[in-house]
Amino acid sequence: MFKIPEHQVAGHQAKDGVLGPLIDDSGNFYKPLQNDGRGSKEIAFYTSLSSDPRVPDNIRRYFPIFRGSKAINASDGSGLQPHLVLEDVVSSYQSPSVMDIKIGSRTWDPQASESYIEKCLKKDRESSSLTLGFRISGLKLVTSSKDASVWQPGRKFLQNLAANDAKLVLSRFVSSNVSSNDNIHPDCSFASKVFGGPSGILEQLLELKKWFEVQTIFHFYSCSVLMVYERESLMKGSSSSGALVKLVDFAHVADAKGAIDHNFLGGLCSLIKFISDVLEAPVENGFCNNYCSKDEH
Amino acid sequence: MFKIPEHQVAGHQAKDGVLGPLIDDSGNFYKPLQNDGRGSKEIAFYTSLSSDPRVPDNIRRYFPIFRGSKAINASDGSGLQPHLVLEDVVSSYQSPSVMDIKIGSRTWDPQASESYIEKCLKKDRESSSLTLGFRISGLKLVTSSKDASVWQPGRKFLQNLAANDAKLVLSRFVSSNVSSNDNIHPDCSFASKVFGGPSGILEQLLELKKWFEVQTIFHFYSCSVLMVYERESLMKGSSSSGALVKLVDFAHVADAKGAIDHNFLGGLCSLIKFISDVLEAPVENGFCNNYCSKDEH
Repeated sequence: MFKIPEHQVAGHQAKDGVLGPLIDDSGNFYKPLQNDGRGSKEIAFYTSLSSDPRVPDNIRRYFPIFRGSKAINASDGSGLQPHLVLEDVVSSYQSPSVMDIKIGSRTWDPQASESYIEKCLKKDRESSSLTLGFRISGLKLVTSSKDASVWQPGRKFLQNLAANDAKLVLSRFVSSNVSSNDNIHPDCSFASKVFGGPSGILEQLLELKKWFEVQTIFHFYSCSVLMVYERESLMKGSSSSGALVKLVDFAHVADAKGAIDHNFLGGLCSLIKFISDVLEAPVENGFCNNYCSKDEH
Repeated sequence: MFKIPEHQVAGHQAKDGVLGPLIDDSGNFYKPLQNDGRGSKEIAFYTSLSSDPRVPDNIRRYFPIFRGSKAINASDGSGLQPHLVLEDVVSSYQSPSVMDIKIGSRTWDPQASESYIEKCLKKDRESSSLTLGFRISGLKLVTSSKDASVWQPGRKFLQNLAANDAKLVLSRFVSSNVSSNDNIHPDCSFASKVFGGPSGILEQLLELKKWFEVQTIFHFYSCSVLMVYERESLMKGSSSSGALVKLVDFAHVADAKGAIDHNFLGGLCSLIKFISDVLEAPVENGFCNNYCSKDEH
């Protein structure tokens, strides 16, 4: 009944006897409740989100639906363990292509313990979080449900990208000519259908940005923007990409104490600028020309 | 010929034989060029700003005019020393009321030295920088050019405000009933003329925000927004406040390396939210009602 999610690109993964999330055939995503307080913090967040009338409906849809908690057999064989039950946001996709981007130049709450702050600060400084305001935690491009992934770069590479390389990765994410050969210039041929348009990823991020400019309810530390789309249908010429933005991972959400989440908002605006640049990049000779490749320096 | 600036509210001040900025009667502001690299960094910034065609004219006016450098007799009696020559942005005011707000939850460049980062991080954590995305470095309310300041709270108090207190300070900054008695609720009677209106402070900050959403030229660490207005004329019933926003202090500006300044932008958006809240606060019984005073908790 429970399976290991195929399309997870970041976080603990439930394979080789490790504790990680599971899914079922009814569109549920079971996330193990961590004992160290993070699990209860995430439940508290979802509970508060569900009941807080200040969260507008158009924003609520950017969060996975919360279906309570349940004890199920954990993926590490440790028997019945409590799990958070969430909507599996990719369950309706045939072969979702996914990118997970941790937002914010700071992933730690000022109220966290010294040792935790030290650990996070080190990671923020060693990754692109500090420089770009976000870091890519994982991505997977899939063309057909039968194929293996077309492109799934390693996390080490993804997490510490310079601006030009981040633009390149985002360009490849929406290009038809992606292969394991890194030297092919991306054609960005899906950019307008995935990033652009009235229901594309850019519009969704801009809607979130508007909310983050005024909301003083939550501060989202170490939370990710998940970008999903259906690549197979675009390869076949369809104009519908199923482009979707979701916010995920709320184990480090804190009370906003009267201020907007300037840390998340800044990182979100940075991501928006990168995506706008990919979208607006002039295409020359079939390649999008929005970054300097390394050999041009 | 050279005088100590009366209206400086933050930074090193040239009194009691200390090295600090000087002004003259021709509207020039002389800032000592610090030897530790900060002086040359600030000159490099102004030089680059002056010549960079990517900086639009509507944004250029938010920076003090740069008039080169000059050796003048330093305020500490050490003889001729090199000074940056800038426009004295308050020289045209009779009795400017001024607030200096250091923008950004992080005041340090990732490329700075470990010891400098450690020092800044400590200050950011101990002040409101981390929580609000900015800290008030100083303020001075002056009613008439003959009077002493009406209100000039200590820096220690200003730098570590909780959200409600920041709102209170911003409310008092635009209230007619400010005195040394802290218990008087501010009336916010100048809010619409100073913060509001087509040329008010909010509109100026929003214009800057638009630029910060796209500019990938500079990252402004430890830079301040200076807010200035002429209080005397408002007290006399004039509708013109001379509300002015300037960016100041560029000793820690870094190359943007292709990303927007998400750190400055986040802090700026946070300040904008506070100022919008003061502006939109309902006035009840002659007092603006936009915060919980301490005794209401």
